[in-house]
Amino acid sequence: MRNIKLTIQYDGTDFKGWQIQPKKRTVQGEIEQALHKIFNQKIRLIGSGRTDTGVHAAGQVANFKAVTQLTLAKIKSAINNNTGEDIAVVTAEEVNESFHSQYSAKTKTYRYWILNDEVMNPFHRQFCLKFPYPLNIAKMKRETRVLIGKHNFKSFQGNNRVNQNQDTVRTIKKITIKKDGSYIQIDITSTGFLYKMVRNIVGTLLSIGTGQIGEGSMKKVLNAKSRGKAPKTAPAHGLTLLKLAY
Amino acid sequence: MRNIKLTIQYDGTDFKGWQIQPKKRTVQGEIEQALHKIFNQKIRLIGSGRTDTGVHAAGQVANFKAVTQLTLAKIKSAINNNTGEDIAVVTAEEVNESFHSQYSAKTKTYRYWILNDEVMNPFHRQFCLKFPYPLNIAKMKRETRVLIGKHNFKSFQGNNRVNQNQDTVRTIKKITIKKDGSYIQIDITSTGFLYKMVRNIVGTLLSIGTGQIGEGSMKKVLNAKSRGKAPKTAPAHGLTLLKLAY
Repeated sequence: MRNIKLTIQYDGTDFKGWQIQPKKRTVQGEIEQALHKIFNQKIRLIGSGRTDTGVHAAGQVANFKAVTQLTLAKIKSAINNNTGEDIAVVTAEEVNESFHSQYSAKTKTYRYWILNDEVMNPFHRQFCLKFPYPLNIAKMKRETRVLIGKHNFKSFQGNNRVNQNQDTVRTIKKITIKKDGSYIQIDITSTGFLYKMVRNIVGTLLSIGTGQIGEGSMKKVLNAKSRGKAPKTAPAHGLTLLKLAY
Repeated sequence: MRNIKLTIQYDGTDFKGWQIQPKKRTVQGEIEQALHKIFNQKIRLIGSGRTDTGVHAAGQVANFKAVTQLTLAKIKSAINNNTGEDIAVVTAEEVNESFHSQYSAKTKTYRYWILNDEVMNPFHRQFCLKFPYPLNIAKMKRETRVLIGKHNFKSFQGNNRVNQNQDTVRTIKKITIKKDGSYIQIDITSTGFLYKMVRNIVGTLLSIGTGQIGEGSMKKVLNAKSRGKAPKTAPAHGLTLLKLAY
């Protein structure tokens, strides 16, 4: 039994997210369909984690186990030939038996991409949020500091899947905010993310950047440990799962 | 009467090209509809030239004349608010009465974008041609030299609109081929282009790059002055109208 690790890119626009669901087009569903065709049997694909409807990936990782003589190059091209053009397997590697895309992951990095302009660039509109209001980037950067380290991020967890018993403690390793012309990239690296956590942090940062909420707001929201305290969630299409570290 | 010059970007994927056509979604049609709404009368938008179905623009230029008190910023935002997200007016300027987007143009630059890899990047698939076969870039560059200058480009004119009497002489000012990783950009600047001329030159360059046709082929094709001699046309979606010079 070989354990095959895939690095996958996808344009999330036309997918109902990563996770397989009956009668819906999902990334996991589409790749599992390809694996079924290639290996002539049902094969479970283990992703590093779900991404929501409309969220993209530049470096999602998934693995599956199979008994096969196919070379890695053949496996890669066979999957690419049996999935839509909005999915690309960029590498296929053989890893040891114990490798698990989700449990072996040390950190995960998401990027939120913003065009801070009144006019969208038509070539980026599916991957980038148009945000027309002036933003104070220095203030946004300062406010991210309280998020670094091990915290209870309950305030940034999406409502719909809130589970009273779920552990909402995560460790954010790094947050960078880069401005290049009118484009802004917010990169967040963490040991793990709660449901909609990045989009809720970005939503809060945007409210801070416009001055809608004041200096010190990020700390207040974090300490509240309640979703109701955080400003609204940033839209899905600006978010990309950038990379995993193992 | 003011003469307003627009610089326009568009993702050509969902348009039947630039030129207005009944019951078809075209860029000119969509902007003229917006102008009609804004100025409450039919206004003709003059483009620098047509782009075909599926061809994109990063710097198309068009102008229209109107009697209005609206500021340029208002005109720009009003058009953007009344067109799809795949069109963006990036600048609106006032120009003198005699300015004509097509006739005043000195040169036009097109870019053809290629990913020379077996796997497409899902984020670029609508703007870039996937070309999986090895290409000899140095040879391609050498073969472009015979195209520079004033020539009869009849061999590179698309068949469907061939007019025996049309002047097929144009002056190509510059061709650059740049490779960056697996991406290749072919930029062509000319005083004007015949129908499908860029895509036919790129098609020929790709056949030269793979070795399908030999050294000296570009000269042979050019001298033939017959479309039948040139290899097949490169697909529309890799092509972008980059800029106009006046």
